[in-house]
Amino acid sequence: MKKRTYPLGKVYGLLEPGPVVLLTTQRNDRLNVMTMSWHMMLEFEPPLVACIVSNRNYSFELLRDTKECVINIPTAEIAKTVVACGNVCGRGLDKFKKFGLATEPATLVRAPLLTDCYANLECRVVDTRMVEHYGMFVLEVVKAWIDPKTKWPHTLHHKGFGEFMVAGKRLKLPSKMK
Amino acid sequence: MKKRTYPLGKVYGLLEPGPVVLLTTQRNDRLNVMTMSWHMMLEFEPPLVACIVSNRNYSFELLRDTKECVINIPTAEIAKTVVACGNVCGRGLDKFKKFGLATEPATLVRAPLLTDCYANLECRVVDTRMVEHYGMFVLEVVKAWIDPKTKWPHTLHHKGFGEFMVAGKRLKLPSKMK
Repeated sequence: MKKRTYPLGKVYGLLEPGPVVLLTTQRNDRLNVMTMSWHMMLEFEPPLVACIVSNRNYSFELLRDTKECVINIPTAEIAKTVVACGNVCGRGLDKFKKFGLATEPATLVRAPLLTDCYANLECRVVDTRMVEHYGMFVLEVVKAWIDPKTKWPHTLHHKGFGEFMVAGKRLKLPSKMK
Repeated sequence: MKKRTYPLGKVYGLLEPGPVVLLTTQRNDRLNVMTMSWHMMLEFEPPLVACIVSNRNYSFELLRDTKECVINIPTAEIAKTVVACGNVCGRGLDKFKKFGLATEPATLVRAPLLTDCYANLECRVVDTRMVEHYGMFVLEVVKAWIDPKTKWPHTLHHKGFGEFMVAGKRLKLPSKMK
C-alpha cells in the first residue's frame, strides 16, 4: 500500500468516527503491537489524541519508556489480524512474526508503520499526568500517512467480545461543524 | 420509544464504537443540548467516560456548575436534528423548542433524557482535573436506558464538516477481548 503524507489538520476526521486501531511501539530492538479502541481527539491542530493503555499491557511500558508510538488504522480486510493482535500478549511473543505483519519505518518516531493499514499516525507522548489514574496518555500526532486509493475505508468499530460494526454508508448534511 | 434499564457493565459497548452523541444538561430550569463526538471509555464498571466540552460551548458552564448530564445516543433517523443541535449555540436559544425535541425525566440526574435517542446514559462528573487543560470531564454513568427494539442501531460517526459514516454491517469473530 503506497502512502502519501496527510495534512495534520485533517487527522481528527480519521479518529473521530471511533475506529479500532493498532498501536505499535518499539523499545530498542523490541517491537510490539496492540489492538485499541479507547481513544479520542483532544485538539484539532496540532492533533492531540488521548488514549488508554492499561498497565497490564506490554505496550504500556514501551510507550511509557520511549514516549513514542504509531497509531495504525486498519480496515475490515484485516479484521482477523486485528482480533489476533488483541488476543495475545506481546511480552513473550513477536506478534509481527506470528501474524506476518509487514512494517515500514516511520520518519519521526522509532515505532514502525503497519503497511496494511490505510492510515498511520506517528505520535509522541506529550502529557503523562493521567497515566497513573486511568492509563491515559496524551499523544501529539507529528506525522500522518494515508493510502490515497482508500476513499471510504471500511473501518472496524468494536462493540465488545469480538463483535464489530463495519463502517457503512456515507451521509452528508449541510453543517457549520468542523 | 419505550426504554428499559441497561446493565452498567455493558455500557462500554454502546460508546466504544465512537457514535456521535447528544449531551443534555440542565441548570435550574434552563436546559441545553449539544452534539459531541470527542468521548471515550475509561473504565468498564462502573462505566467511566471522558468527554471534551469546549469552554466556548454553553454546555460547558452547565456541566461544570451542575456536575450532571445525560449522554443520549441518536441514530441516523434523526441525523438532521443531530446536525442542527451542533450548528447553533444554546445560550440565547431553546433548542428543545426550536427543534421539537421530546424529553423525559431522568431518575438520578436533573438533565433530561432525549426520547428519540435509542440509548440514554445518566452521568455524574467525577473528575475535573483535566477540565482546565483540555475541557475534559470524567463522567460516571450511574444509570443507563435502552430501547429494546433497536437491535442494530444505525449510529452516526462524524468525519468532519457534516459528513458522517452510518453504522454498517455486523462482523463477529472469535475473540478473548472484552
